[in-house]
This record gives sequence, structure tokens and C-alpha cells, in this order.
Amino acid sequence: MKVTTVKGTNDYLPEEVRLRDHLQEKILKVYRENGFEHIVTPVIEDIENLDKSEGGENLNLIFRILKRGDKLDKAIAAGTYDDLADMGLRYDLTLPLSRYYANNRAKLVLPFKAIQMDRVYRAERPQKGRMREFIQCDIDILGSESNNCELELIKTTAKALLAIEIGGFRVKVNDRRLLKAVLVNMGFAENELDSVCIVFDKLDKIGADGVKAELEEKGCSSDAVVRFGEFIDRGTFTLEEIKKYVNEDAVTIVDEVEHIINVSNELSEGKYEVVFDISLVRGQGYYTGTIFEVESTSFRGAIAGGGRYDGLIGKFTGENVPAVGFSIGFERIYSILSEQNKKDTGMYGKRIAVFYNADEFAKASKKADSFRGEYDVCMIERPKKLGKYINKLEEQGYYGFVVFGEDEEPRVLGNKG
Amino acid sequence: MKVTTVKGTNDYLPEEVRLRDHLQEKILKVYRENGFEHIVTPVIEDIENLDKSEGGENLNLIFRILKRGDKLDKAIAAGTYDDLADMGLRYDLTLPLSRYYANNRAKLVLPFKAIQMDRVYRAERPQKGRMREFIQCDIDILGSESNNCELELIKTTAKALLAIEIGGFRVKVNDRRLLKAVLVNMGFAENELDSVCIVFDKLDKIGADGVKAELEEKGCSSDAVVRFGEFIDRGTFTLEEIKKYVNEDAVTIVDEVEHIINVSNELSEGKYEVVFDISLVRGQGYYTGTIFEVESTSFRGAIAGGGRYDGLIGKFTGENVPAVGFSIGFERIYSILSEQNKKDTGMYGKRIAVFYNADEFAKASKKADSFRGEYDVCMIERPKKLGKYINKLEEQGYYGFVVFGEDEEPRVLGNKG
Repeated sequence: MKVTTVKGTNDYLPEEVRLRDHLQEKILKVYRENGFEHIVTPVIEDIENLDKSEGGENLNLIFRILKRGDKLDKAIAAGTYDDLADMGLRYDLTLPLSRYYANNRAKLVLPFKAIQMDRVYRAERPQKGRMREFIQCDIDILGSESNNCELELIKTTAKALLAIEIGGFRVKVNDRRLLKAVLVNMGFAENELDSVCIVFDKLDKIGADGVKAELEEKGCSSDAVVRFGEFIDRGTFTLEEIKKYVNEDAVTIVDEVEHIINVSNELSEGKYEVVFDISLVRGQGYYTGTIFEVESTSFRGAIAGGGRYDGLIGKFTGENVPAVGFSIGFERIYSILSEQNKKDTGMYGKRIAVFYNADEFAKASKKADSFRGEYDVCMIERPKKLGKYINKLEEQGYYGFVVFGEDEEPRVLGNKG
Repeated sequence: MKVTTVKGTNDYLPEEVRLRDHLQEKILKVYRENGFEHIVTPVIEDIENLDKSEGGENLNLIFRILKRGDKLDKAIAAGTYDDLADMGLRYDLTLPLSRYYANNRAKLVLPFKAIQMDRVYRAERPQKGRMREFIQCDIDILGSESNNCELELIKTTAKALLAIEIGGFRVKVNDRRLLKAVLVNMGFAENELDSVCIVFDKLDKIGADGVKAELEEKGCSSDAVVRFGEFIDRGTFTLEEIKKYVNEDAVTIVDEVEHIINVSNELSEGKYEVVFDISLVRGQGYYTGTIFEVESTSFRGAIAGGGRYDGLIGKFTGENVPAVGFSIGFERIYSILSEQNKKDTGMYGKRIAVFYNADEFAKASKKADSFRGEYDVCMIERPKKLGKYINKLEEQGYYGFVVFGEDEEPRVLGNKG
């Protein structure tokens, strides 16, 4: 039997789970307080739903579940190897949410504000920082076109990040429609826009020259590429400046983004900054409007991201339902906070051990109960080498211990007195 | 796209998730207070680990995950259809726990007291009460042979059941070794014992005559079947009475069971009863000693069960590690409590809505914040039909609402004032 986990998945030790639980509980609490409601959907989805979704790259990363019994025999006999699976593991929580909405809308009050905090699966090649099983942590508002949804999502996500003390961060905002309006104005064709966005998204990795080269290669008009090159080289733009790069009909989009940024900054009370960033693209194919991303000011990479995806739910319901969501990168924040050596800082009850002789369980158990509430109490049959054992408990973050029959109150370990 | 969940799995509505979260949090809190530590293992396990485990019937219910890329092509080309999967979804939490222990024992303090509360998967034929994705809720103690482990597990599980207010219940205790000693004494052969246990386990369903008939059919000695028939017909036995049915070397087992029952009853403070039941069998193949089960006094069927499985971990480590566990049937208790119409009884913050005009978000948001902490506050753009909307919120268990600009304090809904 193999003792290790399958590649790309983890066993979490008690100390690790304490931090993970603590973070999930804190985030969930903030979300609930802010009017969102926790829902749960299955990890398994119909394989056709997954395959036909707009998951971009993720569609190549679906874990497929083999059919069973007669249906499997049939698929094999027919030699239809593409047809061996009937279900798959979800690669994100947005597709299941869209299906959930379609399945349950009669029972939901609109706009529906959903919390999801759950496992997703991607058949990535195992490598550092790429996991095959991980937690996503999403809030979404379905059924409203109002920009107040964006304001709520930014504010609530920021509150959750403040609650878990992740350190300084900044919220970047853009709009897919605005970015596309800039590109159109530079001379890119309508049907090139999505692939130009995808190339532009790689700016951090391949640099301005890389972007230009790749666009040339794709056969984009040289004129457009030159203009876009100058645009990139200039670096950052204020919203006022970006107005010069778009047609008049896109100016209302600028106003919307400006409104979202200004109100968000007013509500942030100086605890975080909300800024415009025309270079923000976000990978997913389904975004249709506003997009946002949170970057830590101390750690590289995004710690949260999201945007508006007004088309996705319509794939299930037949009619478009406006939707916008914001997702905290749970594994990223867990990795940041666990590296900060956040040992047992009172996330849960202080732990103590009660040592007892094997034949005294009942009495010792009553004594242990008298400490519960104030402490988490682990009962342990007195080991032969008590001192050595106590040292181990100290390493595990125990607060103290009681030797039943000797101590009335816990003896505090180490420097915690 | 299909809007329903795949068969045997559920979408949970906000109200349902509130109850599920509440139950899980309460149980987890009791477990933690009693010295157990929460761990998390992957949902996916190596397919060989699953296939080679002692899961009995469950081995036929494994969801198998298709290999990917070259490995899949190879398996198909070789026509080795048994070899199409490299991983599977776990069917319980005991096998992953055993692997976890083997993988991490250097970092664990023994005896190791683990909490697991997580999803498991079984490819059951969909039918009422049989789910393909469901939650198990286990505590286990690894690395100790002491009967004090059984005492701790019974007490802690009972505390959790009291905490969630499941109503009256009784804990039944037996020992596999004792049951087998009875059977040997009646003349059954050593190699028949396991299958006799399996038939005996069906007593509730097929009755005494059914058990006798099935044992005859299996070719057990008629003498043994007659004696066992008389034994069954007699019904219940005290521990004192059972001593007459076993050889002298099994009397120490009677004493152990008696000790567990007596001390457990002393510790229960009359809140539940712990009784001996020689007819308790429990299905799993891996149990080696004590077995226990909790039955509700108001609802049919077991609500928790467990036992000692001293051989399982040895399959990973090569050396036997004593182990004993107790599992609460989470879906059963959820179904009991949700049928009791446990609506929003203050499990989380009282929910209120703040209605605002679309252009007043910032001010209304500050007002909403002033209620948070005391209430969970959902901000809602003022709908055209406010009265109708408020009725819907009342159905959803909302406590009250505020119309921004009109109300300083929440107006309480319905009869909750």
C-alpha cells in the first residue's frame, strides 16, 4: 500500500488544519455578516456540463470519472474512448454556481448573494505551487446589473482580508469592455480582441517586446501593434487619460469604473487603496465587464480576483442573468500566513493535557471536564517517560498540563506563564 | 447544459447549509474540547490503496478516475480495461486515516486522537436515503490498546450528540471476539465465523427463522444452527448470562466489556444509557474487538457506530498499530433535525435587510456596518414592490429590515418582536 498522498494533493497536519480552519471560519463570518449566504454544491458534475463550459485552459485539466457497469462495458465495446466518463470533478466553483442558480432559482430571493468555500480539482502537472486539489473561496451576486454589486464585493472581500490580517493590499480595477474599446481604437479587428487580451495578460512574463512580437506573429495589423506598443511603453494611465484612447460611446464605461473606484476608496477608510489598472486582464473567458484583482503589497502575485460574467448563467437558463463574483485565493493566503510562523496564537481553546493512571479514568475524566470550556483538554494515560512526553506536547503548541492526583490547576509550559 | 445535480448528490439551499454548518461546528467544538485534533486528507486516493483495502461491499462502489494523456492512451492500446483508472474517490475516512498515520507518524504525538469531518463517495444505485456524496464525521484514537480509548470515544461522541440536541439515545456495546467465542462454543467452525456474523447481522431484516434458514443453506452444522436458534430466540442477554455461553479464556473479554459499560454509565450522569447487546455485529470487515453503535430512542436506525480495528494500519506500516474509532452518521442526524423543522433558531447572526436607493450606496453601506456584529446585514437596492419583497424575506427567516433614510433601528418582522 502507498503511504503518500496522490501527487498534487496534501495531508494536513493538526497544526496546519488549525490555521486553515481558522482562516475559513474568519472569512465565512465576514461574508455572513455582510449578507451573503453559504451554499454547498457537489464536487462531481455531469461531464458534458464541464466539457461545454467556458473554462479556457481548465477544460484540459478535468479529472474524469469512469462509467460503471453496463454503461462502461458498452462504451468499451463500442470503442468510443471519448465516452468512457459520465462525470467529472469540478475545476472551479463558478460553473457549479451557475448550474445551482438555474436548478434552484424558484427558491432563491434575488439578487442572490452566495458564499462558496470548497474544494476544486485540476489535473495539473504536479509542480511547486500548483495543486490538484485545493480550496476556493468565492462570493457572487446573481441577478443584478447594478454597479453597487461591484462595490459590495470589493468592500466585503477587503473586509475578509483585513480580518485575517494578511497585511497591506491594493485592489486593482478594470473593465473588459474598456480594454477592448482601447484595442478597437488602435485598429485591432473585433475578432482579434480576445486573443490580444490573452497575449497582453502575459506582459509580466514576456515583457513589452514579447507582447509586440507575439501580436505580429498572430498577423495583427502592424499599425495597431505599433500604437499598442507605444501604449504599453507609456505604462500606467489615469482614467482621465484613458478617455483619449476610446471612442465617445465608451466614455460611460470610464465613468462607471471611476464611480466604482471613488466610492470604494471612500469606503475603505484608508485601510486599502482601490486603483485603476488598464493592464489588468484576468484569464477566464467568461468575463464580460468589470474585472478586479487584489495584490498584496508584501507578497508577489494576486491574492484575490474576480469580475462580471453576465453570459454564463444563460447557458443553463436560456435567458441572461447578470452575475459578478470575487474569489479569494485561499491556498495563496494560507501559504503566506503559514510562512509567517503563525503558531498556535489562540485560534482555538488553549490546549492542556491531563495525565492519569490507567485505572483512574473515570475520576480523571471528571477532573478533565472541569477544565473544558476554558481549555481544550486531552486525556493521556501517564507515559513512562513523562518529562520527554511533556517536551513533545510543548513542541505541538500545548499550553500546559495537569498530573491527575498531583495538580489542582494546570502547570503552564515554557514561557507562556 | 443539465441544471440538476448528478444522481445521488445534492445542491444545498442557504437554509439547509445553515443547519449543516451549525451541526458540524457544534460537533467539531465538542471534539476539540475533548482533546481530539482536526485533520484533513485528500478526497482522491491511489486506486490500488482503495482496491486492496478491506472495505467489504464498498469496494464495488468506488468511483474511479480515468488516467490522462499518454498513460490513458497506453492502457487503451494495451486493451487493459481494468487499468484505465489510476485514482479513485475515497469510500470512507478510515482508510485515508490509516494511510495518513503511516505517512505522518514521525510528526504525531501518540496516542494520536484525530477528528475527520469530510466528504466520502459511493457509487450506490441512487435510491432514497442512499447518497453518492455524503459527509462522515469520525473520531479515532491510534496507538493505544487501552480500553480507556473506548471510554473516551463513547463519552465524547455522546457529548457531541447531546450538544446538537438529537433527543434520547442509547449506546450499545459488544465485542467481535466475544460474539465469535459464543459461536465457537455452539459448534460453528473457525472458518465459518465471519459469514455467520454477516448472516446474524441481518436478524432485524430477515428474522430468526431467516437467519436459521440461511445458515443451514450455507452448510453449517445442524447442531450448531439449532443451538444458535435457541440463543437467538431467547433474545437479550446480560453479560453475566453470556459467560455461560463462552469458554473460560473468553471470560476476560466479558470483564473488559463490563468495565467499559459500567464506567461509561457512571460518566453519562443519566443523560444516556450504555448497554450490552450480543446481537450487535457491525458490517465492516476490519473490526477486531469492541464494537459500538448509538441508536436514537425516537428515530429508527443507528445514528453513530464504530469499533476497534487493530489490523488496518499495519497494512501500511508493516507493524500493527492498535486503533479504535467512532463515527457519527452525519446525514442521518441532519435528516432527523431538518425534519424537526429547525428553522433559523439563531444558529448564526439574526439577519436583517437594509433597503437603499441605488445612488445612496456609500451612505447606506456605513449605516449597514453600524448594525453588523449584532446582525448579519444584507444590503438590497430598494425593489419596486417593497412589501412583496419583505414577505419573501420573512419566509427566508429574516429577523427584520431597515429602509435607509426612514428607519434608525430595524423593524422586526412577523411575530419575532
